Amino acid sequence: MAPAFIALDWGTTSFRAYKVAGDGQVLDTLSAPHGILSVTDGNFEAALESHIGTWDTNLPVMAAGMITSRQGWIELPYVACPASAADLARALHHHTTASGRRIAFATGLSYRSPDGMPDVMRSEEVQVFGSLGQGANHFVTPGTHSKWITTDGDRIVRYATYVTGEVFAALKAHTILGRLMKDGPDDEQAFAQGVRGALADPAGFLHRIFSARSLGLFGELAPESIASYLSGQVIGTEVAHAIRDNPRDAEYVVLASPGIGGRYVKAIGLAGLNVRYGDPEAIVKGLTIIARQAGLI
Amino acid sequence: MAPAFIALDWGTTSFRAYKVAGDGQVLDTLSAPHGILSVTDGNFEAALESHIGTWDTNLPVMAAGMITSRQGWIELPYVACPASAADLARALHHHTTASGRRIAFATGLSYRSPDGMPDVMRSEEVQVFGSLGQGANHFVTPGTHSKWITTDGDRIVRYATYVTGEVFAALKAHTILGRLMKDGPDDEQAFAQGVRGALADPAGFLHRIFSARSLGLFGELAPESIASYLSGQVIGTEVAHAIRDNPRDAEYVVLASPGIGGRYVKAIGLAGLNVRYGDPEAIVKGLTIIARQAGLI
Repeated sequence: MAPAFIALDWGTTSFRAYKVAGDGQVLDTLSAPHGILSVTDGNFEAALESHIGTWDTNLPVMAAGMITSRQGWIELPYVACPASAADLARALHHHTTASGRRIAFATGLSYRSPDGMPDVMRSEEVQVFGSLGQGANHFVTPGTHSKWITTDGDRIVRYATYVTGEVFAALKAHTILGRLMKDGPDDEQAFAQGVRGALADPAGFLHRIFSARSLGLFGELAPESIASYLSGQVIGTEVAHAIRDNPRDAEYVVLASPGIGGRYVKAIGLAGLNVRYGDPEAIVKGLTIIARQAGLI
Repeated sequence: MAPAFIALDWGTTSFRAYKVAGDGQVLDTLSAPHGILSVTDGNFEAALESHIGTWDTNLPVMAAGMITSRQGWIELPYVACPASAADLARALHHHTTASGRRIAFATGLSYRSPDGMPDVMRSEEVQVFGSLGQGANHFVTPGTHSKWITTDGDRIVRYATYVTGEVFAALKAHTILGRLMKDGPDDEQAFAQGVRGALADPAGFLHRIFSARSLGLFGELAPESIASYLSGQVIGTEVAHAIRDNPRDAEYVVLASPGIGGRYVKAIGLAGLNVRYGDPEAIVKGLTIIARQAGLI
């Protein structure tokens, strides 16, 4: 099958490129730990060509992610929610490189919650646009900064960021809670215990996490299980808050690889809600939709 | 006035000794950043004498703090709540050093909350025993690991630890939330804004703290004010949870130096509750009471 365009997911710490057919089928994939932060001289074109240099320069490129942030190739203003893929298509920034590649940059979405707090994302919205039309309208993209995204029809209407992955890493590496931890395989029971504690008392985060130490001190949690328990406490706290305003029969779609995605599927299930895995490469579908709406393919 | 005993507050990172008269009056004070973690060879006696070597060896010593923990001079089992100063006096561990000093070690208190979570403290209970009889029965000892302690008569009946200070430090130094921060004087307004956000949505901690970044990105919070704002978010989250089961007309006593203590007084005040400063050296009074009940003075 002939490639129609190149999809680019260029984030803070990783680079992913996909050669894509007109129907959205992925023909070839490249990935590297070369996020925008590793491009120190601002020469994003050279960085791009070092990866996809052998790919046909006539193929249009559709790029999304932190590549359009202040630290990226070109900073693009956010499109405000509610917003659809068509809104992103209309806001594309077009650029032709010295080597003649045509790149369309898709910006991210901003959202102002009722309490006045601004929120931002770049790329998660594309994953969601690539996942619509299958019944669900609640999406989770777990990670360093998890996003909980709600759609209505073809639009993203609201979302919230949770600093979950980064807080967990900081607690583990830089507080007393990590001191008694020993490496070990994931402990599903300890994880579930942490999630249940969080669901029962979501406002008590700063208190509850101390139990990762005290249960260890009292010999009631094995050193190899403490990390799983603390992960459950942190993810459970996120889940308890993120679901609070949604109907109980809502269906949640987790957009992530099975590792981190599995923890979220389990935690959301422990909260008694409907949850399933989505397509971890939904960003390609989303970029295909945007490319089509912009008339690029 | 003649000294009656030496009070010793020996914690993880600091050493404090007080020469005390029989009525509890402090006659002399020594403090040094020589917590138990700096005693690497286990020679606590030499460490002690390096500080109070010139003080009369005939004076009995009353010691409290992490010095009775696993990493301290002698590990003592906790006394379980509810517990009074008399209970601690009965559980004193007596030791005579090679140089002839008689030391009475006061252990700490454990507590098992209704949800089954164990909690531990060493020294904060002595501060509270030194603060009783003045009407209040809710006490806060802010810090790395804050404690919220409730008394009934002469007993501590329950308490809870919050990992607040340590979480704030980790967020500031080791997450994206610290990236936009610039040093500056405390910003009381930004602190109050953070506290109010936390009081309005205590379960949303992992989401709300992201605003320390997004408000900075949108130019709605000055770089010099972000640390105060985040401090308000973190302390406000602690306060919102710690007060939830107490009567609205409860009086809170903050046992801390004015710096960190002032933030707690302000946050508790913003929650609409009665709050006042306690005696930051209440630990001396507490050790005096225990020494008296044990017949040491």
